[in-house]
Amino acid sequence: MARVAAELRERVSRANKELAESGLVVGTFGNVSEVDRRAGLFAIKPSGVPYEEQTPDHMVPVSLETGQVVDSDLRPSSDTPTHLEIYRAFPCGGIVHTHSEIATSFAQARLPVRCMGTTHADHFRGDVPVTRPLTREEVDGEYERNTGLVIVELFRTGGLSPEEIPAVLVANHGPFTWGKDAFEAVEHARVLEYLARMEVRILTMAPDVARPDAFLVDRHYLRKHGKTKYYGQK
Amino acid sequence: MARVAAELRERVSRANKELAESGLVVGTFGNVSEVDRRAGLFAIKPSGVPYEEQTPDHMVPVSLETGQVVDSDLRPSSDTPTHLEIYRAFPCGGIVHTHSEIATSFAQARLPVRCMGTTHADHFRGDVPVTRPLTREEVDGEYERNTGLVIVELFRTGGLSPEEIPAVLVANHGPFTWGKDAFEAVEHARVLEYLARMEVRILTMAPDVARPDAFLVDRHYLRKHGKTKYYGQK
Amino acid sequence: MARVAAELRERVSRANKELAESGLVVGTFGNVSEVDRRAGLFAIKPSGVPYEEQTPDHMVPVSLETGQVVDSDLRPSSDTPTHLEIYRAFPCGGIVHTHSEIATSFAQARLPVRCMGTTHADHFRGDVPVTRPLTREEVDGEYERNTGLVIVELFRTGGLSPEEIPAVLVANHGPFTWGKDAFEAVEHARVLEYLARMEVRILTMAPDVARPDAFLVDRHYLRKHGKTKYYGQK
Amino acid sequence: MARVAAELRERVSRANKELAESGLVVGTFGNVSEVDRRAGLFAIKPSGVPYEEQTPDHMVPVSLETGQVVDSDLRPSSDTPTHLEIYRAFPCGGIVHTHSEIATSFAQARLPVRCMGTTHADHFRGDVPVTRPLTREEVDGEYERNTGLVIVELFRTGGLSPEEIPAVLVANHGPFTWGKDAFEAVEHARVLEYLARMEVRILTMAPDVARPDAFLVDRHYLRKHGKTKYYGQK
Repeated sequence: MARVAAELRERVSRANKELAESGLVVGTFGNVSEVDRRAGLFAIKPSGVPYEEQTPDHMVPVSLETGQVVDSDLRPSSDTPTHLEIYRAFPCGGIVHTHSEIATSFAQARLPVRCMGTTHADHFRGDVPVTRPLTREEVDGEYERNTGLVIVELFRTGGLSPEEIPAVLVANHGPFTWGKDAFEAVEHARVLEYLARMEVRILTMAPDVARPDAFLVDRHYLRKHGKTKYYGQK
Repeated sequence: MARVAAELRERVSRANKELAESGLVVGTFGNVSEVDRRAGLFAIKPSGVPYEEQTPDHMVPVSLETGQVVDSDLRPSSDTPTHLEIYRAFPCGGIVHTHSEIATSFAQARLPVRCMGTTHADHFRGDVPVTRPLTREEVDGEYERNTGLVIVELFRTGGLSPEEIPAVLVANHGPFTWGKDAFEAVEHARVLEYLARMEVRILTMAPDVARPDAFLVDRHYLRKHGKTKYYGQK
Repeated sequence: MARVAAELRERVSRANKELAESGLVVGTFGNVSEVDRRAGLFAIKPSGVPYEEQTPDHMVPVSLETGQVVDSDLRPSSDTPTHLEIYRAFPCGGIVHTHSEIATSFAQARLPVRCMGTTHADHFRGDVPVTRPLTREEVDGEYERNTGLVIVELFRTGGLSPEEIPAVLVANHGPFTWGKDAFEAVEHARVLEYLARMEVRILTMAPDVARPDAFLVDRHYLRKHGKTKYYGQK
Repeated sequence: MARVAAELRERVSRANKELAESGLVVGTFGNVSEVDRRAGLFAIKPSGVPYEEQTPDHMVPVSLETGQVVDSDLRPSSDTPTHLEIYRAFPCGGIVHTHSEIATSFAQARLPVRCMGTTHADHFRGDVPVTRPLTREEVDGEYERNTGLVIVELFRTGGLSPEEIPAVLVANHGPFTWGKDAFEAVEHARVLEYLARMEVRILTMAPDVARPDAFLVDRHYLRKHGKTKYYGQK
């Protein structure tokens, strides 16, 4: 158990550094976590500690079952209950939250990052959607937990696959992305920002342009992710 | 007194360097000051000296009471009378002025940087407002002092709290930000630029989108600044 | 033959590194190839290998005649059949494909990068065009080969010269550029991105502005490329 | 004479390097010159030589009277006749030409960079104007010389002061700036780019916003440039 946590902390610390170096976070904003489902634990960034001071020991293990901190005197990221609800509902291994400039602009404009081409389809099989705004009760109550529940609700009611679309924009807040582990979640955060950057230009220059055909999106998604994928070596 | 000034100069010099490294200033533009209210002094950047040549000895102490330079042969920043009026009216410890690209664009467009999401609400509890243009009399007279007075007037007549909204855009000029000390003022200048960058995109892509609910703004502002704040350690 | 391939691999490896350093590629996206027409071979980046790990030995030689890999156990870039069709139809020496941010935005917006001034005319004698979208049959069939055929079709039916306009945008996909060798193709990819960046601004600020006169475009194109060129030394 | 040229070449070489480091030039584009009016010479960048290879010896002296190269086997920049006409008509000491991204976008959109605030007024006392397009005769004839003549015509017929507005946009081409020496001309090129960057945002967000009052523009211009200037030390 202690060894599991040590390895998890080391990986999460490394992924947080990778996030900090990606230019996607401002100040102490943003956080990465990774789960070990057999151990029933995830580790997450502590709250408000500057990225450059963070060591693996700062990463806070949290129980998947109880949501309580395990073996640490530090407070976990204030967004921890959001991560918890996502781990409980979606079959993912790592989660990232940022206030990255362009994806957050879309969250604030309450616009999805639409799938407009092959760069998008190589990573996400469809639009990256926006949640509904939280109600007063949800904000005044367990706000961060409710943020997670609203994300899960969006995927459930919209019939979206969290494996094929591992990203979401929380209205007036910012993006969450996930992946098979913390590093893939960081990669998805980086790609989402890039796609959003292109979508700004499309909305400005050609807001009514036709969307790519579904068969093109599928071809690209499946050449990288399907059983018959043929991108990369092996 | 001399020791107070020495410490103040050293801090202000450091904060000016931090500002220069932030990418928010062009050439010799921009300035940072910090006040020691017990000593009745603030120290500010000298006028037109390149950032890379500045040492603590270049920082110019100015009397809060008389507005006169104390113990220095250098001219203080030409914006010194603006800083003076802000220190006299607002309970802050440090002030920053920049011509940072995006916030200055808003000042020139005479548009506020609206509070459109949680990144904003984490720092400013409401829109960052724009002053009215100065009159011919105000410009032809004590121009820099009148700039300060117009800022103070805006907050007074608008019922705005300079503690909850520590930033302003001077019409056709640029942003001033403040904080509990010079370093927080620099941080606010940096965040304002980031928020403005996002607001450009919202105005372009979704100019009529609904604003976030007040209860969301309050929740975020208060989780970082209120008596019941729960962000960060301890 | 082996020596030819070795030299080609070394050059292509170097050009791929130059592309990676240009900021035009994200992750493992993008690829460069160069052809040796006498040897009947071109060499291209392997599929999905991180740029920083690539050595000349990783570059994959491909036969111009058969399209088959020669002397390598690695899979060539998945876009190899597109390069093959371009080499077969156009008299060029090197080809580059990227998902560079702005040119890809144009491909997704299905807008040409118009020739709006002398910077453009110095490199491309006219608009950089967009292909038609591929049909379902083309996508479900030999997709990458058909991409190349659609590029060639566009130049043939449009009466465009691949020598005077060594660049194209594939609808909903991204740019391909070519040149007399791999390095000129990289240079064209870089210039195209720059021109697209300016075109975004023109479309935003002055969508109806008059285009430059043809005699200005010709003057600039010919002062760098024509028989009577007088730019540069000698 | 030889010593004059040596010093001029050294200064022009240094200013060209400064321009290259400013990020305002792409490839071998852009050029800086400086004049020694007593010696009747200006020195300018050679045509098409990469910035990193340039030494003072590469800089080409040109006679103000004849426009001929003096003491050099290299070809001067192809834009040399434009510089020559500007030196003949305007009382300046250095000239810069770039294809910098945003200022060139304005030249292509045939829009002036308007004076919208104090950052502009600190450097240019009014809008930076755009020339008319050149006629077919002007382009087919002595094109580069005619470019200079069209710039001079614009200032003459518009009653503009080349000392108060040391910058221009040539339609569908790009910016030229000048100053008391080559280094100030580079500084003006850098500031123009920054101002243009802000003007893009104003045109996008608030195209109809009121312009700053003339008395504000004058106040700022004169506090830095007038006889009664009070910016800087001394």
